[in-house]
Amino acid sequence: MIKPLDYRDGVLYFLDQRRLPQEETYVPCRTDQEVAEAIRSMIVRGAPAIGIAAAFGMVLGARRLAARTSGELLAGLEGVAATLTATRPTARNLFWGVERMRACALRCRDRAVEDICRELEAEALRVWEEDIAGNRKIGQAGQKFLGDGSAVLTHCNAGALATGGYGTAIGVVRAAVEAGKKLVVYVDETRPFLQGSRLTAWELLKDGIPLRLITDSMAGHLMKRGVIQAVIVGADRIAANGDVANKIGTYMLAVLAKENGLPFYVAAPFSTIDLSVSSGEEIPIEERPAREVTHLAGEALAPEGVEVCNPAFDVTPAAYVTAMFTDRGAIFPPFAENLARAAGEKVD
Amino acid sequence: MIKPLDYRDGVLYFLDQRRLPQEETYVPCRTDQEVAEAIRSMIVRGAPAIGIAAAFGMVLGARRLAARTSGELLAGLEGVAATLTATRPTARNLFWGVERMRACALRCRDRAVEDICRELEAEALRVWEEDIAGNRKIGQAGQKFLGDGSAVLTHCNAGALATGGYGTAIGVVRAAVEAGKKLVVYVDETRPFLQGSRLTAWELLKDGIPLRLITDSMAGHLMKRGVIQAVIVGADRIAANGDVANKIGTYMLAVLAKENGLPFYVAAPFSTIDLSVSSGEEIPIEERPAREVTHLAGEALAPEGVEVCNPAFDVTPAAYVTAMFTDRGAIFPPFAENLARAAGEKVD
Repeated sequence: MIKPLDYRDGVLYFLDQRRLPQEETYVPCRTDQEVAEAIRSMIVRGAPAIGIAAAFGMVLGARRLAARTSGELLAGLEGVAATLTATRPTARNLFWGVERMRACALRCRDRAVEDICRELEAEALRVWEEDIAGNRKIGQAGQKFLGDGSAVLTHCNAGALATGGYGTAIGVVRAAVEAGKKLVVYVDETRPFLQGSRLTAWELLKDGIPLRLITDSMAGHLMKRGVIQAVIVGADRIAANGDVANKIGTYMLAVLAKENGLPFYVAAPFSTIDLSVSSGEEIPIEERPAREVTHLAGEALAPEGVEVCNPAFDVTPAAYVTAMFTDRGAIFPPFAENLARAAGEKVD
Repeated sequence: MIKPLDYRDGVLYFLDQRRLPQEETYVPCRTDQEVAEAIRSMIVRGAPAIGIAAAFGMVLGARRLAARTSGELLAGLEGVAATLTATRPTARNLFWGVERMRACALRCRDRAVEDICRELEAEALRVWEEDIAGNRKIGQAGQKFLGDGSAVLTHCNAGALATGGYGTAIGVVRAAVEAGKKLVVYVDETRPFLQGSRLTAWELLKDGIPLRLITDSMAGHLMKRGVIQAVIVGADRIAANGDVANKIGTYMLAVLAKENGLPFYVAAPFSTIDLSVSSGEEIPIEERPAREVTHLAGEALAPEGVEVCNPAFDVTPAAYVTAMFTDRGAIFPPFAENLARAAGEKVD
């Protein structure tokens, strides 16, 4: 199984996603600041994986503080939380992960500093394990919607590398394959960071799941020609009304799926759902450096001095979404109502 | 003015479009085979430019044959035509350019070999000049539809580099700017060959026309946010019913424009229109090498062994097209009727 991160002897290791598929190297992080930098520079990416990284970032931060009292520790953790959440604005799971760790610290505030640190570590490990377990539930919820012999289009990487180790959208594909279905995955390369060609293609090849790599611009053509039967993507944040922020280019796929009468599925854990934002309009969209668009592997792709837009995400209105596969089962429209209902339920 | 090609002393020079924007080098072609290879390897690309290249290819072929009789020359030219048309299947102008030269040779079949060669050379020069003049008419026909202060999205390169030297879609932008309008051009980078970032961005920068470079996946997001007011693209072949074959990704833009209530314009000379194919379904779509998707500047972007689709074009159904700007004026739906009518008219 692909391990996007690892935690041993108080050190967090990230499989460096900037260097895949050429190199499989792990980058060690010993402090919360190093974790923050790994998130910012996209050594680790993918909303659920960022959530797990943030949880461990809180553990490493707690240790780095070397607080003498629990009060000092809890106060210091606020700074750690601020460092971690300042890295990337869109993915809900980042804030969720930090929030969960803060709540854990608060719960055991009356205990010794070393106890609190141990509790935080146990909590981060639970966040990680629960993410993988949640991914498997997402896979079960979604796989029945993918027909045997069908071709499924995905965008970006919502696989093992984007999560604790199984995947959301690709987790659904894995679950379908485990259920004995034959699938072909069409993989958008996902410019500018190429999560599709570098990460999703690598994962699927490793698992022996048939795939075809395409540029982002080919998806519509293949849908129109009847080559694709369904679209499935992950999510970075889902608003209370069901609007979905995900990797730039997702909205285009949703529009094209609708135009071609294809289902458009979103696979995400509940930690991606943000009931505090009423619609996608309120989700902040990160603008990334121009160089991601103008350069590749140090090579200039565009003339010098060109102005660039580089929004990392877009928002797909809920109206385009056929169903959401979550760790609380499949959710259908009307999303405002059904997300709220599912949010009220306890996870089993 | 940007010169995508030049012809001096019986040698055809192409500005090497594979090396832009880093290097401005001209590649000399002395034979029809060299021209065919330049078309195949995309040293020269863009439907109208390919048409001009093919016309000069016929001239170089005629000279290479060193025929002793006009009969021998005309017979040999059939082989030259076959070599040239075997390079790329989609762009109409390639076939149109060869056909026009063949007709020229036939018209003067009773003259001396050297006379026929001279006539062919004069005809190729006319093809080139007429293309530039036609581009200016396209520009005039289209520019009135671009509002002052508006942002226009384009895909691929339908500029000077794709034509004799002014541009179709970018010709319309140039004409609008010459008419005193302020425009911003949003330039899709156009994977996999990056005609947008490498060629269109370079052209616009050179001409001082404001632009913003984006990845192909960002177009929908910007349309939805109200940033874009119109889409304008070139064409590689237009069927009798108005279906438009153009660079892969064009269809996606057309669907997104419709969904967002924006006009979708196609700018092309009449030499791109193929009344012999009734619909876009009949237009052959070129499949290009996988390496264009998996590699960039020699660098691997994807894991080895990955399967790839690389259709170079797609077909946008006529129903998505708001208007076509041609060298015979603006043409509106119903296209089947109005293209036929315009085809019957003599160019002024």
